[in-house]
Amino acid sequence: MTDFRSDNTHGASPEIVEALRRAAGGTISSYGRDEITLRLRDRCRELFEHGSLETYPLLTGTAGNSLTIAAMSPPWGGVFCHEDSHIHRDEMGAPEFFSSGAKLFPISGADGKLEATVVETMIREIGGEGRTARPAVVSLTQATEAGTVYTVDEMTAISEAAHRNDCRVHVDGARIANALVTLGATPAEITWRAGVDVLVLGATKNGALAAELLVVFDTTLAPELTTRIHRAGHRLSKMRFLSAQLDAYLTDDLWLRNASHANSLATRLAQGLGTVQGVEILRPVEANIVFARLPRSVDTSLRDHGFLFYPWTLFGEGAVRLVTGFSMAEEDVDSLIAAARSSG
Amino acid sequence: MTDFRSDNTHGASPEIVEALRRAAGGTISSYGRDEITLRLRDRCRELFEHGSLETYPLLTGTAGNSLTIAAMSPPWGGVFCHEDSHIHRDEMGAPEFFSSGAKLFPISGADGKLEATVVETMIREIGGEGRTARPAVVSLTQATEAGTVYTVDEMTAISEAAHRNDCRVHVDGARIANALVTLGATPAEITWRAGVDVLVLGATKNGALAAELLVVFDTTLAPELTTRIHRAGHRLSKMRFLSAQLDAYLTDDLWLRNASHANSLATRLAQGLGTVQGVEILRPVEANIVFARLPRSVDTSLRDHGFLFYPWTLFGEGAVRLVTGFSMAEEDVDSLIAAARSSG
Amino acid sequence: MTDFRSDNTHGASPEIVEALRRAAGGTISSYGRDEITLRLRDRCRELFEHGSLETYPLLTGTAGNSLTIAAMSPPWGGVFCHEDSHIHRDEMGAPEFFSSGAKLFPISGADGKLEATVVETMIREIGGEGRTARPAVVSLTQATEAGTVYTVDEMTAISEAAHRNDCRVHVDGARIANALVTLGATPAEITWRAGVDVLVLGATKNGALAAELLVVFDTTLAPELTTRIHRAGHRLSKMRFLSAQLDAYLTDDLWLRNASHANSLATRLAQGLGTVQGVEILRPVEANIVFARLPRSVDTSLRDHGFLFYPWTLFGEGAVRLVTGFSMAEEDVDSLIAAARSSG
Amino acid sequence: MTDFRSDNTHGASPEIVEALRRAAGGTISSYGRDEITLRLRDRCRELFEHGSLETYPLLTGTAGNSLTIAAMSPPWGGVFCHEDSHIHRDEMGAPEFFSSGAKLFPISGADGKLEATVVETMIREIGGEGRTARPAVVSLTQATEAGTVYTVDEMTAISEAAHRNDCRVHVDGARIANALVTLGATPAEITWRAGVDVLVLGATKNGALAAELLVVFDTTLAPELTTRIHRAGHRLSKMRFLSAQLDAYLTDDLWLRNASHANSLATRLAQGLGTVQGVEILRPVEANIVFARLPRSVDTSLRDHGFLFYPWTLFGEGAVRLVTGFSMAEEDVDSLIAAARSSG
Repeated sequence: MTDFRSDNTHGASPEIVEALRRAAGGTISSYGRDEITLRLRDRCRELFEHGSLETYPLLTGTAGNSLTIAAMSPPWGGVFCHEDSHIHRDEMGAPEFFSSGAKLFPISGADGKLEATVVETMIREIGGEGRTARPAVVSLTQATEAGTVYTVDEMTAISEAAHRNDCRVHVDGARIANALVTLGATPAEITWRAGVDVLVLGATKNGALAAELLVVFDTTLAPELTTRIHRAGHRLSKMRFLSAQLDAYLTDDLWLRNASHANSLATRLAQGLGTVQGVEILRPVEANIVFARLPRSVDTSLRDHGFLFYPWTLFGEGAVRLVTGFSMAEEDVDSLIAAARSSG
Repeated sequence: MTDFRSDNTHGASPEIVEALRRAAGGTISSYGRDEITLRLRDRCRELFEHGSLETYPLLTGTAGNSLTIAAMSPPWGGVFCHEDSHIHRDEMGAPEFFSSGAKLFPISGADGKLEATVVETMIREIGGEGRTARPAVVSLTQATEAGTVYTVDEMTAISEAAHRNDCRVHVDGARIANALVTLGATPAEITWRAGVDVLVLGATKNGALAAELLVVFDTTLAPELTTRIHRAGHRLSKMRFLSAQLDAYLTDDLWLRNASHANSLATRLAQGLGTVQGVEILRPVEANIVFARLPRSVDTSLRDHGFLFYPWTLFGEGAVRLVTGFSMAEEDVDSLIAAARSSG
Repeated sequence: MTDFRSDNTHGASPEIVEALRRAAGGTISSYGRDEITLRLRDRCRELFEHGSLETYPLLTGTAGNSLTIAAMSPPWGGVFCHEDSHIHRDEMGAPEFFSSGAKLFPISGADGKLEATVVETMIREIGGEGRTARPAVVSLTQATEAGTVYTVDEMTAISEAAHRNDCRVHVDGARIANALVTLGATPAEITWRAGVDVLVLGATKNGALAAELLVVFDTTLAPELTTRIHRAGHRLSKMRFLSAQLDAYLTDDLWLRNASHANSLATRLAQGLGTVQGVEILRPVEANIVFARLPRSVDTSLRDHGFLFYPWTLFGEGAVRLVTGFSMAEEDVDSLIAAARSSG
Repeated sequence: MTDFRSDNTHGASPEIVEALRRAAGGTISSYGRDEITLRLRDRCRELFEHGSLETYPLLTGTAGNSLTIAAMSPPWGGVFCHEDSHIHRDEMGAPEFFSSGAKLFPISGADGKLEATVVETMIREIGGEGRTARPAVVSLTQATEAGTVYTVDEMTAISEAAHRNDCRVHVDGARIANALVTLGATPAEITWRAGVDVLVLGATKNGALAAELLVVFDTTLAPELTTRIHRAGHRLSKMRFLSAQLDAYLTDDLWLRNASHANSLATRLAQGLGTVQGVEILRPVEANIVFARLPRSVDTSLRDHGFLFYPWTLFGEGAVRLVTGFSMAEEDVDSLIAAARSSG
């Protein structure tokens, strides 16, 4: 294992593959009217301590984010997000497409995080003009694209600013399990109790084959989401195969175990790498991603040893991103550290 | 097995589940740059005897149909399709959404089929006016929503009419394997040699968990399709899990074996049911669907025996649809026939 | 005057040109916050006997129709209209564009008119399926594209069918003045009292330079319309120049006088032409349009005499459309009749 | 005259009203196939020294800008513009709407102007990633929203940067006449010879009732523009009334005379106001707009004297915008200066 490119280069947890196998037999109602999908919803209601939330299994985070934003925002809505956010940088305009033209307002902020006061100031400026867009959504990523984690207080402050200004709160939770582990909080505490209206709960990067779950706390959005998902070709006929993945993912803390493992590897990696001559750790390591500036010799040496990872010039010259994953071992991390050290 | 509602209530072929299991380990390039996805493309090039076609694994037929139509048609394009077609009746406006407003022209035609001369007349009428829409796409379903199959000659005639009038040809192949078996033709003969520009090759209804494949013969469409798929949230990061399903599906004729099985059950069903007093078979049975008009007593009796199936009032009062599938057995069919007979 | 092609080949009434001239001086608030625009709204409230209606001056009927439909329908909405309707045949997909993909359901009906029972049956069929579109709008044209006029009872019956099924009622009133004159009713009687939610009151075809007026009886639509109009580039900065046209148009019955004149010319034309050997009048003449089937010799002769008019093959081989207008004289009509007669 | 709010609070030049009056009689081909529209195009070909350009009369600048951008950009295109630009700040997402979701990249720059090197850096960053948007359009405003004017060299540099990176160049010319006068250049020199692909030539703010003209130098865009204009409800049936305004506007240098007058008033205003104690002129005054920071006492006094103008907090606390117009007189300016001086 020498692959630090992304958590989506990993495969699938055996528990999830086994759940698929078990779900493969017999006939069952299609389009989400099956018992596995129902069980998944009930499991989430319990897990999130929220008796009426709705859930929608989906196949990609881009779909989850964009469908949520489209349900929250009119075509002339404003969406406030971090300038490094996946929805702005990496989805080729998916939120604009699904919403029929909403406008994203990318905001800068240290360590990949939005700050409540900055967000509120911008919402009011845009909303006050009335000729640019109608503020509609504040979108957070948890854990962030910078590998950091919002505290519950930070999240709550942002949500309150959003709601005060008639905006809803969307969380891109591609790595929500990693954040949950770091915060040591309950799922409820970092979502609806902190003001989140819809969470896109990611599973793909953390052990599923391809599965994300819309967890909808503001259920007034549910009817429109149902229609939008269908119309976007994101409603699986054999929904059981999505639901089975997610059900297994949330069973026996698999999601937390996988995330905990990846997080601890990232911490180990940062600690080890940080002691190498000339290496600079660029962001706080609070999830499963390490951003580092490598001396050219180290970079070259690592690549020569067969380690795979991406340059990350967004964070400056010489910056790289190293992502750990659920199927990686301590030895993989240690061998990278050793290789870095030897090249010093 | 008493479930004749749809082929999407069935599970997955063991060969496909096993392929997923095998694909689950190790890290691999994401977003379709992996070897399984590449192998799948090469397999299709051989299978379809077409050295430059492109393939895009997708998760739903609605996505495949709509993305194709959007790539073929400007927002002001006209799409000519059968009035019973899935794209018009069942996708909640997905083609309109993906294309930013293309207009569907539903056309009537016996047994779920379009006729070349009728299509051409309508294209010319609409195109001539220049104020309604610009003709852009002719869309066929093979096998049709009426359970019938276009012959190669019928398909060719329609494609020629389309191309003569600057339209491209899209095939919704949710049940293309069933048609292929019935026609006894090669994949090439019923697609690009018959003028098809893009085939949405369905696997979900015939043994996959959730997998469709865009087979793009007109490769000028490829760059735009790549972008559209990403932007619509239909590009899987762990693409291998889609590709592995499709690769297994096309290996050792699994797709044809599954379809052949389902087709023969449908024929058996129609023959048996057709001899029951008062039962009328409403459409030629050329794939895996039987449309029948049942006397009320028969309908009631079947439901009392636990058989599941949908009424189909589109085809008249008392009409029902009975779908056979790859995981169904002869005894399931025979027991339905027996139950029908006993209620007479 | 030999131009029977359309009422939009005519120029502008002197009263309206004069109103523009008067409005041209001085500075005034822009974007519709001026006194002329306010006066226009108040005039309409009085004229339509409706104390809270809202009005939006616009430049084209296509804009008025599409903006209204977009405000009434979600992107997945269904719009029920006549198969000959302008919104379906002549606007190049404008309703689909503005609504982000609503689906039009063209319905046939004698003399260009929808029938309430037919409309209701189709709404229920589409609405019942839940996979095609969500019924949202019934759209009527008054006077119709066939030159006929809905009676108040016919209109009321259609509106009731629409509202019973959660649809709103839009009227394309490009020739509403012509209908009003024919019916001898009040503006209120043929609009909101007959169940109309929004009227697009046309002025362009009947004496304005370019001016249509959205008359919004269902004022819950107003905030969204305001935003949509701005975002579509249809909100004039110098709104006074639109409002001044419409204000003059509705002053001293100018709209009714112009329409009455055009209608009577059409009646005169139909009566005269109907007596010519071989000529067949194809539709009841209830507004300012005559559809006729002309013997080839008559058609040729008229064109040789310099008369301009369009063939109308939609209504059959040899059919033509003859439109009268506010700036046409009786002699124009009589000379056409004479020319037709002489060629017999 | 005490109205310094905007140039769109002014009325219309007598020459233009008279042209409308002359155009009001007789019948004429509709939808732009008339001789006035044709003459206008030919006049522009001569004026811009470009034998094949195409022209499209439109009613609003928002429509002109958005239709152009939509024709230049795919739905996933990137549009690079100044952060203060009208298309980003004031059109409620019109470019996003017309283009079905293009993404605007607002760029900061002194005095309302983009700089070529900054634009090129951003285009390359976005284009290089390939996951955010495909760079498609660079949009300039001339004169800018800050009342400044791009030199021919500045414009050329930006155009070259755009074209080098496969982007087209759009100019929002709401105040192009004001810029032309300032630059003392020919229309050709500041447009296609400087690399502009489409100019939206504004007339409304400078003497027309409501008229803008798309001047299309890159005529490969023409067919799509024709369709888009129709489909957006921006194609007037009685096109002559738009064309007549524009034709008069460009006749006998009316556009330049009006702009020259307004520009000189702005210069006079800035010079006078700049000498008032405590007043700060905030931007170079190169067109017909003056941005100033007023002491509170001066602001209050001016408003008490009945002068109308808008605060402009975008340019800082206490900033105001003062716009001169074609129908304003020197005395209007002088009386404002006097009032400011007296309040010091």
